[in-house]
Amino acid sequence: MHGNPVTAILLLICADQKGLVAAVSDFIFRHGGNVIHADQHTDREEGVFLQRVEFELDGFALDRDRFAPAFEPIAQRFAMRWSVHYSDRRVAMAILVSRYGHCMYDLLARWRMGELPVQRPVVISNHDDLKTAVSDFGIAYHHVPITDATRGDQEQKILDLLERERVDVVVLARYMQILTDRIVDRYANRIVNIHHSFLPAFAGGRPYHQAHERGVKVIGATAHYVTSQLDQGPIIEQDVVRVSHRDTVEDMIHKGRDLEKVVLARAVHLHLEKRVLVYGNKTVVFD
Amino acid sequence: MHGNPVTAILLLICADQKGLVAAVSDFIFRHGGNVIHADQHTDREEGVFLQRVEFELDGFALDRDRFAPAFEPIAQRFAMRWSVHYSDRRVAMAILVSRYGHCMYDLLARWRMGELPVQRPVVISNHDDLKTAVSDFGIAYHHVPITDATRGDQEQKILDLLERERVDVVVLARYMQILTDRIVDRYANRIVNIHHSFLPAFAGGRPYHQAHERGVKVIGATAHYVTSQLDQGPIIEQDVVRVSHRDTVEDMIHKGRDLEKVVLARAVHLHLEKRVLVYGNKTVVFD
Amino acid sequence: MHGNPVTAILLLICADQKGLVAAVSDFIFRHGGNVIHADQHTDREEGVFLQRVEFELDGFALDRDRFAPAFEPIAQRFAMRWSVHYSDRRVAMAILVSRYGHCMYDLLARWRMGELPVQRPVVISNHDDLKTAVSDFGIAYHHVPITDATRGDQEQKILDLLERERVDVVVLARYMQILTDRIVDRYANRIVNIHHSFLPAFAGGRPYHQAHERGVKVIGATAHYVTSQLDQGPIIEQDVVRVSHRDTVEDMIHKGRDLEKVVLARAVHLHLEKRVLVYGNKTVVFD
Amino acid sequence: MHGNPVTAILLLICADQKGLVAAVSDFIFRHGGNVIHADQHTDREEGVFLQRVEFELDGFALDRDRFAPAFEPIAQRFAMRWSVHYSDRRVAMAILVSRYGHCMYDLLARWRMGELPVQRPVVISNHDDLKTAVSDFGIAYHHVPITDATRGDQEQKILDLLERERVDVVVLARYMQILTDRIVDRYANRIVNIHHSFLPAFAGGRPYHQAHERGVKVIGATAHYVTSQLDQGPIIEQDVVRVSHRDTVEDMIHKGRDLEKVVLARAVHLHLEKRVLVYGNKTVVFD
Repeated sequence: MHGNPVTAILLLICADQKGLVAAVSDFIFRHGGNVIHADQHTDREEGVFLQRVEFELDGFALDRDRFAPAFEPIAQRFAMRWSVHYSDRRVAMAILVSRYGHCMYDLLARWRMGELPVQRPVVISNHDDLKTAVSDFGIAYHHVPITDATRGDQEQKILDLLERERVDVVVLARYMQILTDRIVDRYANRIVNIHHSFLPAFAGGRPYHQAHERGVKVIGATAHYVTSQLDQGPIIEQDVVRVSHRDTVEDMIHKGRDLEKVVLARAVHLHLEKRVLVYGNKTVVFD
Repeated sequence: MHGNPVTAILLLICADQKGLVAAVSDFIFRHGGNVIHADQHTDREEGVFLQRVEFELDGFALDRDRFAPAFEPIAQRFAMRWSVHYSDRRVAMAILVSRYGHCMYDLLARWRMGELPVQRPVVISNHDDLKTAVSDFGIAYHHVPITDATRGDQEQKILDLLERERVDVVVLARYMQILTDRIVDRYANRIVNIHHSFLPAFAGGRPYHQAHERGVKVIGATAHYVTSQLDQGPIIEQDVVRVSHRDTVEDMIHKGRDLEKVVLARAVHLHLEKRVLVYGNKTVVFD
Repeated sequence: MHGNPVTAILLLICADQKGLVAAVSDFIFRHGGNVIHADQHTDREEGVFLQRVEFELDGFALDRDRFAPAFEPIAQRFAMRWSVHYSDRRVAMAILVSRYGHCMYDLLARWRMGELPVQRPVVISNHDDLKTAVSDFGIAYHHVPITDATRGDQEQKILDLLERERVDVVVLARYMQILTDRIVDRYANRIVNIHHSFLPAFAGGRPYHQAHERGVKVIGATAHYVTSQLDQGPIIEQDVVRVSHRDTVEDMIHKGRDLEKVVLARAVHLHLEKRVLVYGNKTVVFD
Repeated sequence: MHGNPVTAILLLICADQKGLVAAVSDFIFRHGGNVIHADQHTDREEGVFLQRVEFELDGFALDRDRFAPAFEPIAQRFAMRWSVHYSDRRVAMAILVSRYGHCMYDLLARWRMGELPVQRPVVISNHDDLKTAVSDFGIAYHHVPITDATRGDQEQKILDLLERERVDVVVLARYMQILTDRIVDRYANRIVNIHHSFLPAFAGGRPYHQAHERGVKVIGATAHYVTSQLDQGPIIEQDVVRVSHRDTVEDMIHKGRDLEKVVLARAVHLHLEKRVLVYGNKTVVFD
């Protein structure tokens, strides 16, 4: 991403079998690929094998539209679920936000500084509080207010917008509405949410109030993929910060904000760099 | 504890009122006490004031049996719950343990190295696995096996033992039996337990299995006072360690062990140094 | 700051003496002050006493211009260095920055969201890279390029600017120029710098390169007050993040950025809330 | 280690070349090995490739004495530095200690609980303070006092002892003598030391005093291989803990102890599980 040569990233998941690694590495070797990173994981209980291989395109004999036909025989032999990604593609990202702007600001600043390999983001909000802030970044602000009565229509509006902008990844940057399955299913493993607690502790609403009430000594934040089960999706990243009796709920909210934006940003980076593989309700994160 | 001069530690809790701090500091000042640490906390929501004042006995005009009569008028004026402790007293500590010895070993080694201001500990276990280990430290091992049928009688045996040894503090160092209210009430805020998860996440049994199943990226340990509500007592200390998809349940158990013993040891130190005040279901920890 | 009632914050440093706490708390009590936070520290080796007392102005009998005359007798009796601050004052903050915008963006977003109790910040840079970014926030950008030949004049320009804007605190948000004593002395204990290493490890230039070369497993960031000794000033806050052999220098730089902005922001908050007291080359941070 | 099937661990280092991974995985596959973990790293700046492959012996066609001859052609083709290890071998470990027993106690308790895949450890000390403690574990205590005058002879005694006991790994568990090159060279990359600071900060003596003097907000501990350059060897593991102005040097020493033993234990585990590869003055840790 940082002025580096263009690479291909091959992701694959299949049942664990002998000869897998040999077959894949031989395939890349035979076509002249220079592997620069290779990570693999075997979940021995589930019998699942997962791999991420990154190799330079320079010198690699297969161009992009010939990769799939060439690799397919191996994929079929081992019954792989697989995909290939190229580091020079800037994907389309939508940010959904409500009233708290800290995560959104952080992502927009990263985009502006060239840290994120994405196109100009699309921002959608059910409130108009952050309109000026977003406009100041030269980004269009889509205000889609939602009430229980209008939810169906408004979600359709969001869906249309995501389609029109060919969005690849949706980031819920403290978006306080629950998405219905229509959107969740359409963007499976592509909606990244930040929950402001160390899940599974304090799922649901007002987690900092719950944490304060319980008197914990550490609070956390969790970035996860959204599934139809609220706060139950596969966890991408978590981190924590110490608190004490000196911290009021407000103090926790302030400390938590800094955590939320760091944890969300890490998860977004990991997702965009194709370092996260999902299987079952878990992730493998090749960092 | 470390060759330092003898100090008195005054702990107090009362409703927040103007003039409190002035009254207490004036009292110590008038009797020639040299304050070396003073910590206070006001819980503004609950209107509760808590204070820990440590002062040198050298030069202090009141000897130990005259302290209470002299301080009582102030205590009554502000309706305080209070106590005073002296740093040269070595309290009696019991360790209850089942089969996992790591926390117990750690505490015994600390005692042996003179780190803990306690007398020779009393060890009680419902198993006999650790008998030799404990005996090697020159410590008597009380084997009190417990079945559902014998629970009542055996708990009475434990209570008798604690009474006979004039135990001040009970440490549950991975003791896998649930204590009944008879013991819990008798030693309120004096039984320190280590739970092998970041409470309130993964309360109950097999927390590492739960954590692995959920795919969390951070695991934790929690030291808390035992109440009649399982895993719900006031939290003294918590800490966490990162895990990844590479960690099996067994790896988590191993990583967790190191965390458990550090978190429990910190809590025991804090308790013994009279740094923990309990109010409601929370603690104030003056570290 | 967050819709709370206005408070006064009294800071004091003096030689440790009996009766100090009693005198100060009695003073506030007599004038009807309601103490909401009180922190103190005694450095027993140096014999220094430091205190921060925060109390509500509502009900306090002394108005702002009568505070000093009333308190001065106590201050003189104990030979205190002291100051009083009021929570409703929004101080003037200047941000000095070079080419890396991440810390600056973070501070401007915090200001914009109302998190920082400061007026519209003044931004000064020796480069013009970030001009548009700053202007988009509706903030004037002062471009003061510096070469060895022009350093004297240009620093004078900066000083004039700081004077004109009545700046209280200067934040070096990855400002890559070394300030001369003229500025450092004028703003003693009011210039907060972020150094991109865990000082005293890797002082000086290119700390991430140094860290990578040495093969450390943890990198850090340090916020400190600037003194005439480069990277040697009193430390306000530090934090760290794990790295591994998988991290290139570039990866460290990216991980470090997130750390730098969090550590700097914490230090700025602590400074603005008058939680940092400096004595000798150390700080006491009443968090 | 934990009742798991016996595995072989193949470690290799060589110049990065195309076809490496394919050749190694093909070799293991052809002989019926079932790979359960495979980690690799390419240092692109240095052009170095490092790999750790763990595979089950059950079903593997080559028995132990036939492995080397079979693998040697591949090793020569790629000019590898390589070794193979078997998980059922319990290596011989010596612990060198002076007066502080916390790290030693921790290691002995781990050994006693069956956590460490080592034979009964050998303990050597230049003091006799810990003699009883060690004897209570049923372990012989070798007292080898050292003065400047006797250093040469006494080091020879230690060397003889290590030879006689066929020691594989030497752990310096707060051993306060500097080993001469005679021992260091003989046990290159097999002597693990714990230094009580976050290296390279506070190398040399009295690091907690240095840290206190500098007023840092975080202290650390570093486990590293010993080289002839004091405190400069390849770092295996580091970790940190927060401190504040409230911590005296003694408090830092106490907090540091807990850190030292955890960091050292992690490093010893990593070393024993053959997860650490050294090249240049750095380590690759396949955790």
